[in-house]
Amino acid sequence: MEFNDVVYGRRAVNFFDPRRDITDGLLRQVLETAAQAPSSSNLQPWSLIVLRDPDAKMRLQKLAWNQPKVSEAPVALIVLADTDGWKPGHFFVEKNFREMVQAGIMDETRRKKFDEVCFSLYGSSQERKIAFACKNAAFFAMGLMLAAKNFGLDTHPMDGFDIDGVRKEFHIPDNYWIPLLISIGYFRSDKELMPSKWRKSYDEMVVRFDQ
Amino acid sequence: MEFNDVVYGRRAVNFFDPRRDITDGLLRQVLETAAQAPSSSNLQPWSLIVLRDPDAKMRLQKLAWNQPKVSEAPVALIVLADTDGWKPGHFFVEKNFREMVQAGIMDETRRKKFDEVCFSLYGSSQERKIAFACKNAAFFAMGLMLAAKNFGLDTHPMDGFDIDGVRKEFHIPDNYWIPLLISIGYFRSDKELMPSKWRKSYDEMVVRFDQ
Repeated sequence: MEFNDVVYGRRAVNFFDPRRDITDGLLRQVLETAAQAPSSSNLQPWSLIVLRDPDAKMRLQKLAWNQPKVSEAPVALIVLADTDGWKPGHFFVEKNFREMVQAGIMDETRRKKFDEVCFSLYGSSQERKIAFACKNAAFFAMGLMLAAKNFGLDTHPMDGFDIDGVRKEFHIPDNYWIPLLISIGYFRSDKELMPSKWRKSYDEMVVRFDQ
Repeated sequence: MEFNDVVYGRRAVNFFDPRRDITDGLLRQVLETAAQAPSSSNLQPWSLIVLRDPDAKMRLQKLAWNQPKVSEAPVALIVLADTDGWKPGHFFVEKNFREMVQAGIMDETRRKKFDEVCFSLYGSSQERKIAFACKNAAFFAMGLMLAAKNFGLDTHPMDGFDIDGVRKEFHIPDNYWIPLLISIGYFRSDKELMPSKWRKSYDEMVVRFDQ
């Protein structure tokens, strides 16, 4: 699809067709397109739990204000943001380092400095850990919602849920923040979309404080 | 452009053509396309400082490890994430409420409940404030980088900078977190792009912890 058609066509839809499934192959394409997002030092501190099982989706739904779209959509995604995704020794931090060395943009002599910078920027306070994890997971999630639209799917991002309840229910380790859930599936064609909501204009977004 | 060409064509470029400017009209189109991003309760807690003045860009560059791309690109953006962007009385929270009432999806009798929910989800801890602000600002920023590409522009997101220094230099109030800077302009055609960096595969992204 044309880029603008994807951006303006993406809507948070409330109604999914429960009879239309998404194949694993299609979900894989959506997620791998989303993973083209940039991230801090290419650390990609995002993961997902993919729920297809009706019982599992219902357990999630009950922790998300019982919104029917969680179970009606064929797939519910729990997006995870890894607040430890900058730490030396972490599986993907080490993989990222090896990949950088292999690409010729890093070497062992610079490793100590790289670790120090990552700690300073992403790990030196709880605020920085949360900002690092949520910012990068949101780059990924935004790409996911757009990629889904491009493949003819619709999504609904949700942050109205019991984060501690979801953590407990799905045994999610403490290093993950849970920035959002995403329902993904096909729009239920007998339903109507609400008109698009308002958005800030350029003049409402651009600020300055030095005059 | 085709959506996939935008996604796979978007790269964090290190070299901008300092002779090619971006018109205000084009920047406006990019930002208004980016603003189609979804946000928590449509609160859109994102703002930007737009720097075009060479002196202002150089002041920012010095606080961003002196990376030349900050001043070489015609425009440097300071992306702001408003940790207060859920509070009753806030200009855009009130505007959002009025817009919802006008759209028929909210009324005064539900205001108290709406405020309580926003406080609980987005304002009840410093972690939640940062997560709310950074997640939504990152949805916007991801849309911005893709929209720029669609308009023939290139970008470079940066989070290697002195956040307190930037805050002080540009008189940014304490309620804003600064998740990233973005250089935006035209790629310098006499330079070569590095090969794309590795990305997590589907199997590396999808996790579960309950078995």
